[in-house]
Amino acid sequence: MVFLLYLNCRQDLFVILRDFSGLVQVLIPQDESQRELKDALCSLTVESVIKVKGRVKLRPEGQQNKNMSTGEIEVCAESLEVLNTCRKLPFEIKDFVKKSEALRMQYRYLDLRSSHMQYNLRMRSQLVMKMREYLCNMHGFVDVETPTLFKRTPGIARCYRDEGSKPDRQPEFTQVDIEMSFVDAAGIMALIEGLLQYSWPEDKGTVSIPFPCLTYEEAMKDYGLVDVSETFQHTQIEFIRDVIVQPGGCVQAICVPDGAKHLKSKDMEYLKQVARTQFNQEVDCMLVRAEGAIKSPLARLIPDTTRLQLLLKTSANAGDLLLVAAGDQERVRPLLGKLRLHCAELLEDRGVFVCDPSVFHFLWVVDFPLFLPKENEPEQLESAHHPFTAPMPDDANLLYTQPHKVRGQHYDLVLNGCEIGGGSVRIHNAAQQLYILQNILKEDPSLLSHLLEALDSGAPPHGGIALGLDRLVSIIVGASSIRDVIAFPKSLKGHDLMSHAPSLVPEEELRPYHISVLWPQDKDR
Amino acid sequence: MVFLLYLNCRQDLFVILRDFSGLVQVLIPQDESQRELKDALCSLTVESVIKVKGRVKLRPEGQQNKNMSTGEIEVCAESLEVLNTCRKLPFEIKDFVKKSEALRMQYRYLDLRSSHMQYNLRMRSQLVMKMREYLCNMHGFVDVETPTLFKRTPGIARCYRDEGSKPDRQPEFTQVDIEMSFVDAAGIMALIEGLLQYSWPEDKGTVSIPFPCLTYEEAMKDYGLVDVSETFQHTQIEFIRDVIVQPGGCVQAICVPDGAKHLKSKDMEYLKQVARTQFNQEVDCMLVRAEGAIKSPLARLIPDTTRLQLLLKTSANAGDLLLVAAGDQERVRPLLGKLRLHCAELLEDRGVFVCDPSVFHFLWVVDFPLFLPKENEPEQLESAHHPFTAPMPDDANLLYTQPHKVRGQHYDLVLNGCEIGGGSVRIHNAAQQLYILQNILKEDPSLLSHLLEALDSGAPPHGGIALGLDRLVSIIVGASSIRDVIAFPKSLKGHDLMSHAPSLVPEEELRPYHISVLWPQDKDR
Repeated sequence: MVFLLYLNCRQDLFVILRDFSGLVQVLIPQDESQRELKDALCSLTVESVIKVKGRVKLRPEGQQNKNMSTGEIEVCAESLEVLNTCRKLPFEIKDFVKKSEALRMQYRYLDLRSSHMQYNLRMRSQLVMKMREYLCNMHGFVDVETPTLFKRTPGIARCYRDEGSKPDRQPEFTQVDIEMSFVDAAGIMALIEGLLQYSWPEDKGTVSIPFPCLTYEEAMKDYGLVDVSETFQHTQIEFIRDVIVQPGGCVQAICVPDGAKHLKSKDMEYLKQVARTQFNQEVDCMLVRAEGAIKSPLARLIPDTTRLQLLLKTSANAGDLLLVAAGDQERVRPLLGKLRLHCAELLEDRGVFVCDPSVFHFLWVVDFPLFLPKENEPEQLESAHHPFTAPMPDDANLLYTQPHKVRGQHYDLVLNGCEIGGGSVRIHNAAQQLYILQNILKEDPSLLSHLLEALDSGAPPHGGIALGLDRLVSIIVGASSIRDVIAFPKSLKGHDLMSHAPSLVPEEELRPYHISVLWPQDKDR
Repeated sequence: MVFLLYLNCRQDLFVILRDFSGLVQVLIPQDESQRELKDALCSLTVESVIKVKGRVKLRPEGQQNKNMSTGEIEVCAESLEVLNTCRKLPFEIKDFVKKSEALRMQYRYLDLRSSHMQYNLRMRSQLVMKMREYLCNMHGFVDVETPTLFKRTPGIARCYRDEGSKPDRQPEFTQVDIEMSFVDAAGIMALIEGLLQYSWPEDKGTVSIPFPCLTYEEAMKDYGLVDVSETFQHTQIEFIRDVIVQPGGCVQAICVPDGAKHLKSKDMEYLKQVARTQFNQEVDCMLVRAEGAIKSPLARLIPDTTRLQLLLKTSANAGDLLLVAAGDQERVRPLLGKLRLHCAELLEDRGVFVCDPSVFHFLWVVDFPLFLPKENEPEQLESAHHPFTAPMPDDANLLYTQPHKVRGQHYDLVLNGCEIGGGSVRIHNAAQQLYILQNILKEDPSLLSHLLEALDSGAPPHGGIALGLDRLVSIIVGASSIRDVIAFPKSLKGHDLMSHAPSLVPEEELRPYHISVLWPQDKDR
């Protein structure tokens, strides 16, 4: 007995059926006495769902199909029950996956039947199950559901985002959130290494632990960022000269191999806009041409010696893209780090292979600064991650004198260049937490009075980490977007193309909740 | 080495420390050379968290404490590290659990340290883990996360409720949602029986399967509902006479033992209000007094023979409460069934023991009507559960002729009289689903076009069930409220007493989301 989806019919001799485990060939009876069964089998639409009873037999010699896991057998159909039929689809199912992603998302219920979505979602489920076994059964963790309806508080990570979607972002996403008491950073990092090693899918090789570890300083220095301040020491470009003489002022560059060859001018505009809106910084995109020529608005202000030195220091070649930014190093470094990842995404969107998806490199980054200058008010500090990260014990006294020098007990986990998790040892001392909120961050501590009271009630030392599950799974399976590892994702614009959400809710249905939609155009009228 | 919470200090000789596994006694050194350690241990506030190093030794003969799992040993303290201190608490910690629930919820972080909350939440986590093992590892289920940001659709169960809280309700709650293809009701019910048997906590006995099964008709007839239409056949009460002569019209009663003794007049008002607002029905609350006297607004209209017959039929005794309702049986039966559960809750709120919390009785209820008359328009039908429940195969043809007679493939799971789950075989035929939405329920099918299209694309026969996890766990542990099995619950009014949520969000922070709060008083101004 086979319950299966009807895939197609070949020359009125066979039908191919499919379930999640694969395909099977069903032999259509050719005997006139079974005419009715033959007609029924041949007239079905693809993706209909049927129940076939029959006898399994070995295929005749020479008709085996080695590319099919059931290629040595076939089922001789004896009866058929049609459980549901499929309408005539507006596309060929075999081309479906190659079609636009919008089509796949509109017909998600069909897309989910594809072997690659079946693999991704089943692998994800198994990975999560193994993680739960490791945490709950092997390490005594308690699975606690926390409320989503909660007080509005500053700076606490949400699993709903109000920013635009990107290939590795979704308005809703899933984190593996781990909190532990009586723990230090090394303990949490060792737990996570063990967790990933234990839960890693068998068909993706093994994870070797411990993971290498870099400090934030090292990561910023080593990973493609080149300090070219010296090169511009005598520049006639006024704003660069102004920047360099400031304390912390610098000119930094990264080289994007083949960036000039593959990225379009709208990509450059996008990078510049990220720099402006997220970092309040300008960035120059220099296209490196044949014989070391440079195309950039600044090109005519850069003398040959400077240009050659710049190319030499960044090892840039024809076809590469140089991103150059001048400013405070605390802002320029994270900016260029971010743009580097954006370039990798943009190149992959253009079909350029940036990293080998079958090799997995884990890396811890530690010793982050606890605070960074605020974008629009650089004399004011903000949390580099969130206001609950504990300072490194050696730096705790600097909180009261030179807070910008304090390093935090924060650790980021990076897989193949993408941040897949981050965590920290949290502050457990109420007085220290209050000082940071009130005196350093200038936040209103009354919004967090429940937290301060909890700390003041004998909270144990504690820490935690959150792993971005969607991103982790998408890297494991080599998906180009986290949408391929989420059953019902939103489009880049945050739309659900299957149900056509978001959709209008009539005002009278919002009234019982005492809310009202303020359309942007209402303001303009 | 012991990392523990400081509980109290006895006569400067011992301190009692606690962690999640229990208590341990620490001996305070009395030697003058260790004066500093003694002073530090004696001056700590309760619920502070400390790290004690010391030697574990057997207690002297005669000083063992058999009521303490570590009562045969004690720890001779050699050093102390104070990890965090607890402020002076505004209450005695030993009385804390006996204090008002509001206090427990305000200081939830302390309440969560109590042995009963530790037991409840750890048991819940283990139960869920066993359920996952059963489903994913033993039965090949795939754990799929579904979006919470989705299209507004009619009649689909949410895990956010917009109704008032009750002891067994919360604005957010957790369901175990199971969906299966190629399955019938018997298959789902057998799976759930196996699931509960496998995951049942060891210390709560064993679950025997299969569970007994009643039809909706039987459940309504057998479970305390008494038809007293005949008793009122010649009544002079006009509206009852009018009701009885209607087709389906009846007078039904339930007897609440000791209800008159323990329930207050505000409880009766609450029951009447539920009847009015949720069922558009009147209910009479008759208090049975000594010698069979009845206190009720209708009492003077009820002759002695009627009164005695009523008491006889319902087996009511002095101190009992009789709930009597006249109307269509399709409305009166669910109404009285609901009020019966409300009475049980109200009695338990008043400290009256209604059922034995250590005995577990499971029951399936099946053969529900697919549709019920709409409350305010009885000539119009609405779904008894939701619009996606499939009709019983034998009744499918009645859809087109006598839809009110169609039974649904719905099953409810009841534990100790409380509904803990419900599910159904779903409709998989698009034409049948469209007919029900459009012709029977008069819903706009365009809101569900994505569902209809999915069914029309060869959706397999499928069904599912949702278990109310909070309620299930609360019955297992014998908690009087689901708040005792939720880490951070809301109060009866939906407030978070710990963080003081909901709280005001300034209009300017809502503006980017294009929403605005419409205060009810704005309408009245």
